[in-house]
Amino acid sequence: MPEFEASDPGYEARVRGSFSRQALMATIGARLALVSPGRVEIDLPFRADLTQQHGYLHAGITSAIADTAGGYAGYTLFPAASSVLTVEFKINLTAPASGERFRAIGEVLKPGRTLCICRLEVRALTGERAATIAVGQQTLICLADRPDE
Amino acid sequence: MPEFEASDPGYEARVRGSFSRQALMATIGARLALVSPGRVEIDLPFRADLTQQHGYLHAGITSAIADTAGGYAGYTLFPAASSVLTVEFKINLTAPASGERFRAIGEVLKPGRTLCICRLEVRALTGERAATIAVGQQTLICLADRPDE
Amino acid sequence: MPEFEASDPGYEARVRGSFSRQALMATIGARLALVSPGRVEIDLPFRADLTQQHGYLHAGITSAIADTAGGYAGYTLFPAASSVLTVEFKINLTAPASGERFRAIGEVLKPGRTLCICRLEVRALTGERAATIAVGQQTLICLADRPDE
Amino acid sequence: MPEFEASDPGYEARVRGSFSRQALMATIGARLALVSPGRVEIDLPFRADLTQQHGYLHAGITSAIADTAGGYAGYTLFPAASSVLTVEFKINLTAPASGERFRAIGEVLKPGRTLCICRLEVRALTGERAATIAVGQQTLICLADRPDE
Repeated sequence: MPEFEASDPGYEARVRGSFSRQALMATIGARLALVSPGRVEIDLPFRADLTQQHGYLHAGITSAIADTAGGYAGYTLFPAASSVLTVEFKINLTAPASGERFRAIGEVLKPGRTLCICRLEVRALTGERAATIAVGQQTLICLADRPDE
Repeated sequence: MPEFEASDPGYEARVRGSFSRQALMATIGARLALVSPGRVEIDLPFRADLTQQHGYLHAGITSAIADTAGGYAGYTLFPAASSVLTVEFKINLTAPASGERFRAIGEVLKPGRTLCICRLEVRALTGERAATIAVGQQTLICLADRPDE
Repeated sequence: MPEFEASDPGYEARVRGSFSRQALMATIGARLALVSPGRVEIDLPFRADLTQQHGYLHAGITSAIADTAGGYAGYTLFPAASSVLTVEFKINLTAPASGERFRAIGEVLKPGRTLCICRLEVRALTGERAATIAVGQQTLICLADRPDE
Repeated sequence: MPEFEASDPGYEARVRGSFSRQALMATIGARLALVSPGRVEIDLPFRADLTQQHGYLHAGITSAIADTAGGYAGYTLFPAASSVLTVEFKINLTAPASGERFRAIGEVLKPGRTLCICRLEVRALTGERAATIAVGQQTLICLADRPDE
């Protein structure tokens, strides 16, 4: 992966503050596991109330943490007084979402002044084992001069 | 839209049964609003605990109801003793998800023995007004001889 | 489909001029069949030198005419002194691309000042029969104050 | 990237044979640059007759070589008497396609008996410089017992 530098030295506090205002993340029990320039990771313990009909994590929740990880990966590189919106994403669900917990990874592939392209991945973790359960690609837009808060 | 016929006369009970086993749908307060051959609609009242950082419905929840509507739209056309899995979907978030409630629509574009392609749409409803907030496209796979339950 | 109005009365000449500067369209024998506000159609006669390994039209050519139809559908609604770029598209190839000629249809789903979302479809035509062979969704960006020529 | 083993020792001849039957690849001047288990690369010299309205390589041609590289990357891992079809792909065009030649890279992310997921990338090459111009994700289907020829 390319290495990125954040132009805003306050990027981590900015991302953590915004994440803490996403009520959904608290509702499902997700937390930020890593915030670095161009890369964000989110952890989600399995919960039976987040499942689909076969007892696996619902694809919508897999998508929620993947989209959020990618959005904040891009946001680390945005200017201080900006907001981030997801334009679109595409996700392949590559294995049953079975695990004790899940790790969503968002990585910037291509930063830009207006648009930012990210790679998304979600892994299921059980003991020491990790298995990729979803891979995706996302387009973000930077709203300049529109502080997140 | 093309009109479809369900080969399994028990398609509606099969879809409603499977939906009722999706714990996530109960957790977020979603319910089936329409189950017809090749088309399923899901209703979700707004709830503040499902929002992103600006107070709108989180894109992950928008995606969850869109993916579920599309999955069950395809499932109406599948044989009795089968299951449905989402292979992948792509979604554009076209407007802020602001509304009193939300309606996800899944429509089969192209049925098939193994794969099924659906169109996804989510509308925000406020009083009498409706606004499209997301459009997408989804690929499903039919697992034959693998009953859902 | 929603109906759109073009803010630039010269939209048709602008689209036709830009299309005529796409060398690829001449190379493969494609021509504009319809240019209306928010909707563009492109015709392509089958040619054996545009095929994949089984003798069908190559998915890359199906994608080329779909992407171009969508791009110009959006461009009809852009201001006079602007350019259009494809940010991304997603396409499902839903049937073998077998036919005497092909018709790509691009339709604006959601116009916007910066981004524009389109629906893409390609049909194979043989005598009086038409069959959908591809459906897609596309995101465009409007480059304001950057004339196409 | 994960490393893969091809179950069919004749995978390279099988891929090269199929590629040579893609008339479009000869028409545009593309050639196979690498065929290894789970990874295929395609080279395309720039040609003015393959361009869009600003003189860059047309997104449809970028997509054609990306789709073909991914399709054959998956096909290296398929059984001897099978065919490969693209179910769908999504591609972001991340920079103007300006270069002396182009390199499309298809890599298997997730192999499977029926479906196979690939990562797509296209680079523009000018002298010693390389720039990523497109990234994508693709779903393939393996048609067992349907030899390509």
